[in-house]
Parts: sequence; structure tokens; C-alpha cells
Amino acid sequence: MIRKVLIANRGEIAVRIIRACKELGIKTVAIYSEADKDAMHTQLADEAICVGKPKSKDSYLNESNIISAAVITKCNAIHPGFGFLSENAEFAAICEECNIKFIGPSSKTISIMGDKSRAREIMKNADVPIIPGSDGIIENVEDAFLEAERIVYPVMIKAALGGGGKGIRIVQNKNELENAYFTAKTEAKVNFGDDTIYMEKFIENPRHIEFQILGDEYGNIVHLGERDCTVQRRNQKVLEEAPSTILSDELRHEMGKAAISAAKAVNYVNAGTIEFLVDKYGHFYFMEMNTRIQVEHPITEMITSIDIVKEQLKIANGERLEFSQDNIEIKGHAIECRINAENPSKGFIPSPGKIEFLNLPGGNGIRVDTAVFTGYTIPPTYDSMIAKLIAYGRNRDEAINKMLRALEEFVIEGIENNIEFQIDILNNEKFRLGDYDTSFISKEYNL
Amino acid sequence: MIRKVLIANRGEIAVRIIRACKELGIKTVAIYSEADKDAMHTQLADEAICVGKPKSKDSYLNESNIISAAVITKCNAIHPGFGFLSENAEFAAICEECNIKFIGPSSKTISIMGDKSRAREIMKNADVPIIPGSDGIIENVEDAFLEAERIVYPVMIKAALGGGGKGIRIVQNKNELENAYFTAKTEAKVNFGDDTIYMEKFIENPRHIEFQILGDEYGNIVHLGERDCTVQRRNQKVLEEAPSTILSDELRHEMGKAAISAAKAVNYVNAGTIEFLVDKYGHFYFMEMNTRIQVEHPITEMITSIDIVKEQLKIANGERLEFSQDNIEIKGHAIECRINAENPSKGFIPSPGKIEFLNLPGGNGIRVDTAVFTGYTIPPTYDSMIAKLIAYGRNRDEAINKMLRALEEFVIEGIENNIEFQIDILNNEKFRLGDYDTSFISKEYNL
Repeated sequence: MIRKVLIANRGEIAVRIIRACKELGIKTVAIYSEADKDAMHTQLADEAICVGKPKSKDSYLNESNIISAAVITKCNAIHPGFGFLSENAEFAAICEECNIKFIGPSSKTISIMGDKSRAREIMKNADVPIIPGSDGIIENVEDAFLEAERIVYPVMIKAALGGGGKGIRIVQNKNELENAYFTAKTEAKVNFGDDTIYMEKFIENPRHIEFQILGDEYGNIVHLGERDCTVQRRNQKVLEEAPSTILSDELRHEMGKAAISAAKAVNYVNAGTIEFLVDKYGHFYFMEMNTRIQVEHPITEMITSIDIVKEQLKIANGERLEFSQDNIEIKGHAIECRINAENPSKGFIPSPGKIEFLNLPGGNGIRVDTAVFTGYTIPPTYDSMIAKLIAYGRNRDEAINKMLRALEEFVIEGIENNIEFQIDILNNEKFRLGDYDTSFISKEYNL
Repeated sequence: MIRKVLIANRGEIAVRIIRACKELGIKTVAIYSEADKDAMHTQLADEAICVGKPKSKDSYLNESNIISAAVITKCNAIHPGFGFLSENAEFAAICEECNIKFIGPSSKTISIMGDKSRAREIMKNADVPIIPGSDGIIENVEDAFLEAERIVYPVMIKAALGGGGKGIRIVQNKNELENAYFTAKTEAKVNFGDDTIYMEKFIENPRHIEFQILGDEYGNIVHLGERDCTVQRRNQKVLEEAPSTILSDELRHEMGKAAISAAKAVNYVNAGTIEFLVDKYGHFYFMEMNTRIQVEHPITEMITSIDIVKEQLKIANGERLEFSQDNIEIKGHAIECRINAENPSKGFIPSPGKIEFLNLPGGNGIRVDTAVFTGYTIPPTYDSMIAKLIAYGRNRDEAINKMLRALEEFVIEGIENNIEFQIDILNNEKFRLGDYDTSFISKEYNL
């Protein structure tokens, strides 16, 4: 039985987890860095223990201090939240060895899903659509032509040792292929000292759609529908909504089935997310699995009335899921805006500092997940996301209008923030029509 | 078409109405007294206009100033909220004459329902159960015995001109009747100068259960289920929940039907509430109809996903209800705690003053309706209710546990408040069992 949980995180997600524990009658221990002595999560937990200096590697990533804190305070479980140690298979393994329940999947599952090529292989074998690719290196230009025909243009040529976007060449048709092939090889050689290349289908301006999964220890796995996380700035999610505007009931059903197959393929236990790319033709491809709670989980909670963090705790406690796929009902529409301490007019640089005055929006259909308050000083050390504003309505228009009026009520004085930017997005005609893809922010706002 | 609404109220309900208007794209005008220059409702509305001195009679009850404000600002509708002018038939009639849409039922309906004996007569004719009574004065002690037998003991003898609990005698059985009859007559004579008395069945420690009604201008009337408002201190509601723990599906259906009959009997248009008393045998009796939005409307919104204030606006705009009784679904459980600026340790005397620090609870299933903020000074002039905390869960236990953790997070520094008292109620074993009646607070807390 989970009696007492150490929350190995900070900020709003730590508060979120403390709330779920309290509602279930489970004791909580917060950990905090020297920068977070007065933080809300430190104050709300039943106990709080300092685990090190402000830098993450000294505190929130300090595995031995965290394990010691759990042992000292007699916790029998650790919730990692997201970020920090949440997808660290080694940390999960240490917990397992110490007989401290890691609230998440097994270290083995984390490890498998962390290895992208292995995950891809498993998904392929489980008949989950993956991004078509050469499944190995391209030996010569003739091979390149054959593979590109098979994969179907547009394709990407990528350096095997590449990363950070370097050594990638996008090829729209066969006329461009020969030139791109040799350029990519040269770039790969120059940048990575190795000219080995492979090929993958290029998904142009896709939608980023993910399915929330819950699995218990008895092999029961359900999905809670999708979240559309396409609105991103430089691969950072800005705003999420559920359901997606582009999924037909058929496609939703098909993707949900694929998400469950993906989870079943690794005997997934606890909450997880299967991320897909969906192209403009409605084809979907497995991208990756996140083996933890996500920032944007609240929108799924709003449309399903299922408390995902509580479910994590119950699953970790060895309980069976109380619902099957058939009795999960999706109702209404939810949107989440991430409120960040950042300055949109200066390239979104973080804007830490003291919150001189805070007014949180409220009322019907509004949920705020935050760990900040009037007088709180946001330290410069951590992520700039300081609040999640969630709006729920009977339909998408109602949710958008609720979100807009809530953003207008939201007052944060003393620091810069992205509230006005979020208002711009919600007022954007293309957004309102649901007509957007991952290029939305860069195209509409030149960002 | 309603373009611009004057909100003839203050505090959280004014903010609630402004929010609904904004979400529907309707312009808003706040009115404020000199005491409310810096109030949230004054700040949130598109325009704000001062209507008088702090005392209610000079401002929020100042009919001519309010009508003038509406005319000057070119509002074509007035929302009265609750309290103040909301059930003032004369004010509604003035609005009608000025061609300003009063957002509520007609002045005629307000007038009928404000007259308790007339309302009782109408309900009787509509086959809505009313509290059995003598339906007229009791002429002599022999009549009293006959009526009491017919009505069934216990009964109450009441002064015809009575009020405020004076001149009321409760009679448990026939042995007590003669004595009570003459005492009541003497008291009536002393207190009201008239010894006319009548008799009514005494409903001992009932549940106070009310049904939310919505009716459009085309005769469509639906109910949105019940609210249990039994937890009261001196006839003031303290905490409300929906659904009620004591209604069987059959009784809910029967009471819902009666509530619709009651509304239909007066061709009710807009939002209203039929209040019933339910005795320990499951008999229910019409008590009164409130012809306005209620304080506790949010719990119904949570379990139905219907925004009642938006519906008020749409109905007033001549729109048809978008749902019929069959597609109104009750899901989950909601509780509202009224947070008051008052001192429970000093007989709940109001505790106005400056809020030095405010931390509102948040997270999954928590809704806060308030108009206060850090630094706001609560004026001594008005009602002491400063916030409504609403918790929604899949079932009653979850809602209670959410409410408890939210109350624990709620921080209001600088003034006294009833948060601890609400925590006590939620932890009370009888409350948790749903085993309570209107005597709950007086019995459990000696209040």
C-alpha cells in the first residue's frame, strides 16, 4: 500500500501531485532546492526536505540525495512528475532496488522507449504505423532512388550520426534526389566525420497528436482520447486542445487502437502518451512514447472526468482500472494555455523575478494549475512555465471564448509573460477555424 | 438582440454575469456605489458607472439611478443577479416600460411568486404538493381539532399577520392543542394587534431541496436536477451539494415533474428555482419559487455542463432552449462552500477589512467564483459572502476530498473567515454519511 509519496519535482506539477495524494489520503514529502525554500510545493506537502543547491544537477537531478530523502522520511513511493528524473531508467531501477515504488512504468519499459530505434522496431512489429524509412543505411545513389520510390516523396536524407537538424536534406521529387544525396553525404562527413546516411519520409507540416494511455498491472490498457499539441514554437508546445479538430471518428478509433497496440507491445503499466504525427492526408505515424505524466494532461481530465494523476497512484498501488474502453466517454472541449514567465517582445527570453501582484481567473469552466502567488519570486534556474490555464466548454467555440475572457482577467505584475501572445493565438482566424499545423506560429507570427 | 447589458449588482455575482456576457460577445456596464470604486466588477466590465452612495438604498437599490445609467450607456438589457432588485416586480415593470430587457421572468410572474398565499393557491391548482394547512383562518378551538386531525400532527399554529418566527406554536399531538391554540392567539394579539390564526403541517427537520428550472419564451421548460441546500445556519445556506444524497431516482423524477408543473403554471420564462421541503418519509412540499439566479447555481452547472447564466442571456435574447429534458445528463457530484468574511468564534459577526494576502485554491475539479483579490478592502456595507468554492468529482466522496484539500489551500489573510468551519462540516461524520437535516448545524455545533 502506498502510504507516503516523495514528489521528486517542483512547481505546478509537484503541487498537482500533492493535491492528488491529499485527495486520496496519502502523505506527501516535497523535496526542494535551496532556491525553492519558499515555493508552494514546499509549503503544501506534509513534509519537505532540502536536497541540494539550486542547480538541477545538485538537487532535482541528484539521485542519491533524493533516494536518501525518501528513505529518511519513510516514503514507500516516488512520483517523478515530468522532466527531471521522470524518464531516467537508471533512477527508476534504483527505486526498484530500494523497494521504493517508482510511480510510472518499469525501468525496462522506460529504457526501451528511450531508445528510438528500438522503439521503432517494436512498433513496426506491433503493426503500429511508423514513419517509412530505409531501415538501414543507403549504400549508393541507385539505392537512394529505389528507396525514395518505395517510401514516396517527399523524403529526408539524414546523417546516421546526425542531430540538431544538421545533415538533413529534404527532397521533394526525383529531380532533386541526386544532388541532395551527394550534398547530404558531404555535410555528414564534414559535420560528423562519417558520411553514412539513411532515408525517412518527410512529413510536411504535420499535426502533432498524442493519445493518453492508462495501463494497470493486470494487462488492462485503455486510451483516454487524443490531445492536439500542434501549436508549437520551436518544438515547444504553447497551447494544446482536446479533442483535435482534424480527427474523424474513424481516424480517432484507428489511432486509439494503434496507441493501445503500442502500449501493449511493451506491456505498458501506468500513465503514458503515444505521440503521433498526422499528415495532411490523414495518415498517422508513431513518433515516440512519453513514459510519464505530460504537462498537458489536464485537458484530457476535463473531457473525460478521469483524474490521471490519481489513476497513476492507484495503478502504482496495484489497483485495477475501474473503467474499460467502452465506458470512457469524451464530452466537451478543453484547451490549455501554458503561461510562461518570458518576454515575447525579446525573443521569448525567460523573465524570472518577483510577482508583485497576481490575479488568477476563475469561474465556470476555468481551471488553473500553478504554484505561484502574490509575492513569490520565480527563480532564474528552472523552466519558465509558471501556470497552466485550462478552459472547458461544451464545444470548441465555448472553450475558446472562455479561455479568452480568462486570459483577459489574468494579471501577473512584476514579470513579463506570454498572456498577450496567447490571446493573439486564440483570436487568430486560422486557429479559430482549426486550420493549423506545426508551422502555424512560425508562419503567422514570424517566430 | 441583446447588445449591451447593465449588471445591477456587485461582488462575485456581478463578475459571474460579466464573464458570461464576455463569453457571448455582449458588452457590459457595471454599476457601482462609492464604496465599490475599486471593486473587481467595476474593473472587469467594459464600462462602469457610479450610481450612488455606499448604502444599498442609495445605489444598488436606487431604481431611478440604475435605469438612468442603463439609458445613458445605451444598454438594452439589465441583469439583476440575486438579492437587491432581482425579485422586485416594480423594477422589472419599469424595465419593461423603458424597453430595457429585464433578464429574468416577467414582472407579473415575479409579482405572483412573491405573494406566498397566491403562489400556494396556484401550486395547489397545478397539483404541486403544498404544505397541508387550514387554507384559511381557524375560527375556534373545535375547528382547530378538526383541522389538526385532517392535516395530521405535528402541526403549527401561526399568526395570520405574523413573521420572523413570532406567534408560531408547534403542536406535536392533540393533548397539546388546546393550550397551544389559546397561547398562539394571545401572542398574535400582543405582537401583531390581531389574534387571527391559521394552521399548517409542521415539517420537522426537513431537507431543503430545490430544482433548477430553465424556460424559454416558447413554452419549453426543463429542470436541471436538484440541489440539496439543507446545511444552513439560522436559515442561511452554508454549503450546498448536487445531487442530493436522499433522492431515489423515482423521487427525483417525481419532484422534477412537480417543479416543471409549478413553472408551467405561471408560464415561467428564464432561470428559476422551485424550493421544496422533503420530510423524513420522502414526502415533498412546495415552499417557494425564486424567480432569479441563485447563489448556488454553479453546482448545477458542474453536474450538467450547462452554463445557467449564459442560458439566461440566450433566453432573454429570444432564443430557444437547445436541449430537451431527455438530453440533460447529470454526471458526477458537486459541492459549494460559501466563503464568508465573518468570525465563527464571535457568533459569525461580519469581518470586513483589507485582504492582505490571498491564495486561491486550484487544480482539477476546483472552481472559484469570487470578486476579491490581494489588497482588496471588503466594505462593511454589503453581504459577507466573498467567494464560492466549488468542487466537482466523479462521486460524492471525491468531491468532498477535493473540497477539503482546496479549503486547506485557501489562504485569506487580514480578515476573519469561515474556512475552518467549512472544513469541520466536511469532516463531520454525519455529513459524510449524507445523514443530515436542517437542524444539522445547530445540533452538531450548538449554533
